[in-house]
Amino acid sequence: MDYIFSDKISSLQPSAIREILKATAGGDVIPFAAGNPAPEAFPIKEVEAVAADIFKNKPIRALQYGVTEGYRPLLDRLKDYVKNKDNMGKSFDSMIITSGAQQVMDLATKVLCNEGDTIICESPSFIGSLNCFRSYNCYLRGVDVEADGINIEELERALQEEENVRFIYVIPNFQNPSGATMSLEKRKAVYELAKKYNTLILEDNPYGELRVSGQDLPNIKSMDEDGLVIYAGSFSKILAPGIRVGFALAPDEIIGKMTVGKQASDVHTPVFSQMLVNQWMADYDLGAHIEKLKAIYSKKLNLMCDLIDSELNHLFTYNRPQGGLFVWCLLPDGVNMPGFVKAAAERGVALVPGSAFLVDQSEETQAVRLNFSTPTDDKIVEGIDILRGLSHCFI
Amino acid sequence: MDYIFSDKISSLQPSAIREILKATAGGDVIPFAAGNPAPEAFPIKEVEAVAADIFKNKPIRALQYGVTEGYRPLLDRLKDYVKNKDNMGKSFDSMIITSGAQQVMDLATKVLCNEGDTIICESPSFIGSLNCFRSYNCYLRGVDVEADGINIEELERALQEEENVRFIYVIPNFQNPSGATMSLEKRKAVYELAKKYNTLILEDNPYGELRVSGQDLPNIKSMDEDGLVIYAGSFSKILAPGIRVGFALAPDEIIGKMTVGKQASDVHTPVFSQMLVNQWMADYDLGAHIEKLKAIYSKKLNLMCDLIDSELNHLFTYNRPQGGLFVWCLLPDGVNMPGFVKAAAERGVALVPGSAFLVDQSEETQAVRLNFSTPTDDKIVEGIDILRGLSHCFI
Repeated sequence: MDYIFSDKISSLQPSAIREILKATAGGDVIPFAAGNPAPEAFPIKEVEAVAADIFKNKPIRALQYGVTEGYRPLLDRLKDYVKNKDNMGKSFDSMIITSGAQQVMDLATKVLCNEGDTIICESPSFIGSLNCFRSYNCYLRGVDVEADGINIEELERALQEEENVRFIYVIPNFQNPSGATMSLEKRKAVYELAKKYNTLILEDNPYGELRVSGQDLPNIKSMDEDGLVIYAGSFSKILAPGIRVGFALAPDEIIGKMTVGKQASDVHTPVFSQMLVNQWMADYDLGAHIEKLKAIYSKKLNLMCDLIDSELNHLFTYNRPQGGLFVWCLLPDGVNMPGFVKAAAERGVALVPGSAFLVDQSEETQAVRLNFSTPTDDKIVEGIDILRGLSHCFI
Repeated sequence: MDYIFSDKISSLQPSAIREILKATAGGDVIPFAAGNPAPEAFPIKEVEAVAADIFKNKPIRALQYGVTEGYRPLLDRLKDYVKNKDNMGKSFDSMIITSGAQQVMDLATKVLCNEGDTIICESPSFIGSLNCFRSYNCYLRGVDVEADGINIEELERALQEEENVRFIYVIPNFQNPSGATMSLEKRKAVYELAKKYNTLILEDNPYGELRVSGQDLPNIKSMDEDGLVIYAGSFSKILAPGIRVGFALAPDEIIGKMTVGKQASDVHTPVFSQMLVNQWMADYDLGAHIEKLKAIYSKKLNLMCDLIDSELNHLFTYNRPQGGLFVWCLLPDGVNMPGFVKAAAERGVALVPGSAFLVDQSEETQAVRLNFSTPTDDKIVEGIDILRGLSHCFI
């Protein structure tokens, strides 16, 4: 039978990163591609203890259906956590637990966008979110990302020129893939522009707690006096991605619609995953754990960047990120970027071509994205050395 | 701010059942509404042992990102299981693990349907699926369900009259909510009609293993020589709904598109949930567990139906189902169904009005759905007694 697929899925390509991940699963590849947490970042003894306690003392609660909004003790704890830590959450806000932060993007798009509506995105941006928006047949308008975040003039021009802009999608902290951190001035400017042009902001913050240098900046959500910001949080990078727990903090009315959407998507996020996060936060010191993660990632980030500085400074131009998991490197003009990525893969180093992250994927780019959280320190050294050996063919 | 919501979500109401579930969570209500497994149906000691083993021996695998298609050992095991047990799966078929069977409906609709496309549904049918289809702005054409399943003449008329029918959605075993089991002749007829009219079948089988009387009938998927059937399976009723593990068995090309859709929705189903199902199936005797479940539900089904026969035969007309979790009861003409449901709720008995399950929810119906899996035996007796006391006001 010749299957007919929907317009929204026909044009969508599998995520380049997930496909690279699949191709290299279990292989001997040096993994500079995916954004997996370092294995040593998982609190495995703590998780083992919490899981044992849950299945011993509350097995029915963990195995039975839950409500769509999320496990109530976790919702209560998280609302307090984001209020106390980041001053987020007003009386008009509510929260829903999602199946990873990816589902925040999915539900926000589902409830806010008709086909053909516009979403303004940083370009480059996280491929998973871009593909999600595309899967609703939305029109994506890209705005350049500079070293201090989104280009504000371009953003205002986009807001003036585009119709039916339903939201502006931004990753202010250690943006994926550019590594850029949006300045305080730009955070305020993005908020004011959303207000001026009567649109919403989808603020995605998966890496915010993983700052390894510089000063923490307030999230845009903390400035939200008008109910304009949908904030997406995640436990993928600070606890574990495999459990798929994220959350949205947004105005009541939006969370209500997202709840209806989630009922139709997957009913609820696994209860055990939610109980695990809740009890782990109750029993252990999240702050101390995050300090441990920062030490791990600071070491890896600086190892990779120092090696790029010493071994690849003729090849890569980049800004050292203040956190996150990625280094965004530009090859010199004249170097064939796809050819370089292919040659690296043939020598066992998996990189992601920068084009994967562009709103317009046919646009030319010299960028490649390197991840430093997944490889061991030895593999970082080995991988950079392979790229150095390879670079002579390209310069 | 006045929020503008998408057309697809604006018209969608929260699931009546999920809302009743939420309203009665923790309360002293007699739960004839939801379809929760009986607490004694969970193999809690086995799950505790398997979970301990996973977090002791494979913690990183359980906590790290997984691939979108699903945990490979579970995929391999499940393909064998459905092949050996139900003769399902041809060389053209593939499988994806989903976040509950609800996500099979979500992904199938996402990849196959443009807005305005037609889905033919049994009416009444499972509200979660109907709402999912509505959330993609699909047009639903309802076809009556008779004691032996969907009305075949009406189905053919629908296929002749409607354009762009992307699939026929059926629950052949102990249909929710009608309790009807589709006869073998009708299963064959549905397949032949899909073939004749060049459309697909979405076969949803959450209760198929919970047969308490009569003979097992082949699933429509087992007849699929032409790649026409998307089969949705679930562990919600035979292991635990809280872990959210379902699967789709369908032609390669469709599974490939569903995988791309799932990447954009929630990346992957929690790895621990998948590992739990896989190792539980490896370490324990699923067949013996299902026999235990059948004994539990047979007792409850017969208790409720015997009581309806003896106490409520003046009020309820129904067909005793051969399995599943629900009894579908018709009130006499002249009785105000919504008034009866409201009066029952006021006396502490939660029922679901039959209108919730109709394709056209404004259609008149005398039906109410009763669930027997959630309440204890004592609560079944107490609940039916309350309904008996109440019935005098309505007859």
